[in-house]
Amino acid sequence: MKEILAGHGSGGRLMNDMIEGTIRNILGPRSIQLDDSAVIESVTGKIAFTTDSYTVTPLFFPGGDIGSLAVNGTVNDLAVMGAEPKYLSCSLIIEEGFTFTELERVLLSMKKAADHAGVSIVTGDTKVVPKGGADRIFINTSGIGIFRGPLLRGEIKPGDRIISSGTLGDHGITVMSMRNGLEFSSDVRSDCAPLNRMIKAVAEKYPHAVKFMRDATRGGAASVLNEIVKDRNFSALVYEEKVPVKDEVAGICSLLGLDPLYVANEGKVILICDESYAEGIVSAMRTFEEGSSAEIIGTVEDKNPGKVYLETFIGGRRILPLLTEEQLPRIC
Amino acid sequence: MKEILAGHGSGGRLMNDMIEGTIRNILGPRSIQLDDSAVIESVTGKIAFTTDSYTVTPLFFPGGDIGSLAVNGTVNDLAVMGAEPKYLSCSLIIEEGFTFTELERVLLSMKKAADHAGVSIVTGDTKVVPKGGADRIFINTSGIGIFRGPLLRGEIKPGDRIISSGTLGDHGITVMSMRNGLEFSSDVRSDCAPLNRMIKAVAEKYPHAVKFMRDATRGGAASVLNEIVKDRNFSALVYEEKVPVKDEVAGICSLLGLDPLYVANEGKVILICDESYAEGIVSAMRTFEEGSSAEIIGTVEDKNPGKVYLETFIGGRRILPLLTEEQLPRIC
Repeated sequence: MKEILAGHGSGGRLMNDMIEGTIRNILGPRSIQLDDSAVIESVTGKIAFTTDSYTVTPLFFPGGDIGSLAVNGTVNDLAVMGAEPKYLSCSLIIEEGFTFTELERVLLSMKKAADHAGVSIVTGDTKVVPKGGADRIFINTSGIGIFRGPLLRGEIKPGDRIISSGTLGDHGITVMSMRNGLEFSSDVRSDCAPLNRMIKAVAEKYPHAVKFMRDATRGGAASVLNEIVKDRNFSALVYEEKVPVKDEVAGICSLLGLDPLYVANEGKVILICDESYAEGIVSAMRTFEEGSSAEIIGTVEDKNPGKVYLETFIGGRRILPLLTEEQLPRIC
Repeated sequence: MKEILAGHGSGGRLMNDMIEGTIRNILGPRSIQLDDSAVIESVTGKIAFTTDSYTVTPLFFPGGDIGSLAVNGTVNDLAVMGAEPKYLSCSLIIEEGFTFTELERVLLSMKKAADHAGVSIVTGDTKVVPKGGADRIFINTSGIGIFRGPLLRGEIKPGDRIISSGTLGDHGITVMSMRNGLEFSSDVRSDCAPLNRMIKAVAEKYPHAVKFMRDATRGGAASVLNEIVKDRNFSALVYEEKVPVKDEVAGICSLLGLDPLYVANEGKVILICDESYAEGIVSAMRTFEEGSSAEIIGTVEDKNPGKVYLETFIGGRRILPLLTEEQLPRIC
């Protein structure tokens, strides 16, 4: 199996061969140019700019891999701000000894995800570090999105509804199951998906409705909600019975002692809107595969501002605090 | 010494504390926001987009460190395309056990370099990987630049002059000296510097003169020249006696068996222009500290197209090929 060598990261012929023969060949001729920068068509208006490095282990898992994750994660970071994701960069840090077969698999997955999301990978970089210098491959994607108009409107107030675009915990539990040798269930798979089309459809149908939106990655939905209420004059109440969680995910969570509200997702948003729009937004989300399990999961309250509460199945209330650290490292 | 823990990379309180207390505190309030993307002011016109991951070892060296390198490298990638560097992202992959003292030193260096170059770090990301999972710290910076007008004009033709904005090999030899315990000479230091102001001044004074410009990083000046002539109907001739190399750098090169024309620089451009502009451009460069040792180092020829030649001190000619791999790994 042909392996990546230190020389593939240097400024010579080996690097050029890898860029021409593998990277550019797969990602497309515009991608990973040898020029220092990509020149992008004229833009008019505000742009959004985001970056994420992906260090997930294992690299490949049901429902995705580090390549699709790197594209979809950055696409979603732009989409939740109300920007239309357009251009991505792709910077690889590869450990010596990583095989070309694995690299090609990752790049093909990136290309497929980029095509699916409707974004172009326009510039890139490749570094090779010695064995033990990185964990096989790390990918950074940065992204540029164009604002067509403001997405987020209005102040969050008591009575507003909290929506999850679907089942929670799928990504984190998939990765964790693999690490623990629990990948027996074919139904547990990452929700890794681009959300830009669904978000755009919601925004077009309800242009003044969305007050807050965030993809619930590291730290899960409970961490996103804690971010929203922090230092604000309202609290968030989540109804346990309304939180969509797949049976298999719930089962593994209970086996591993994890709470799905804190488990990472890679294709779910938490959205807040006025009560009057909530049912409509959920219906609009459900017309998309990635929103097919959308639910209203909670309400904004004025009691105990700054806190997130869970109303449990049996009617009790407990605080969902901001955890000191996430339960699952290296999840994205 | 306070160390980075796995939890600092998760979606909880530890991560928020590090972002608020260390990263945002140093890089400035706009930087590394918890929001998923930065919203950038309106832009009108074409934009340039670039990315680079920095994996240099050692992290700190005379004349710079991984932080200043990460800012200046990306600034220069934008500047050589003729774009005005404006916005940078900063994505950190940190190994567990890296100290806050080191992190702060790196971030302060990034902040200083960004201020010096006139760019804003507007968005970021932080991942923590286990010990052995990365080599202490890797930094990705991506950058956005705005085009004020085309910089590069006209076709390269025989008779055109090749300019180096200054002494070659300083960065690579500095890093290599440290690795080999040769850091005895106080005069060997990285040339790590932002080139955007010098490039802008040249472009304003000679708006139609520059036919090609590239920063000579991995692979050095000889690799840049090989890229230019590849598959083209001209060759490049470099005069050894005109190539500016510091005495100390030449000495270490000869000690280690390295050719300064292939050694990485982090603050030098190779530029091609019509003969009539060459002296003027060199004079303009020399008014800047970063261009103080600028020289015309060669000529474009029509003989043996696709090749780069060196005319040696004694008048002989030898080919400067595209090396299979660079002599110095992990140089940036």
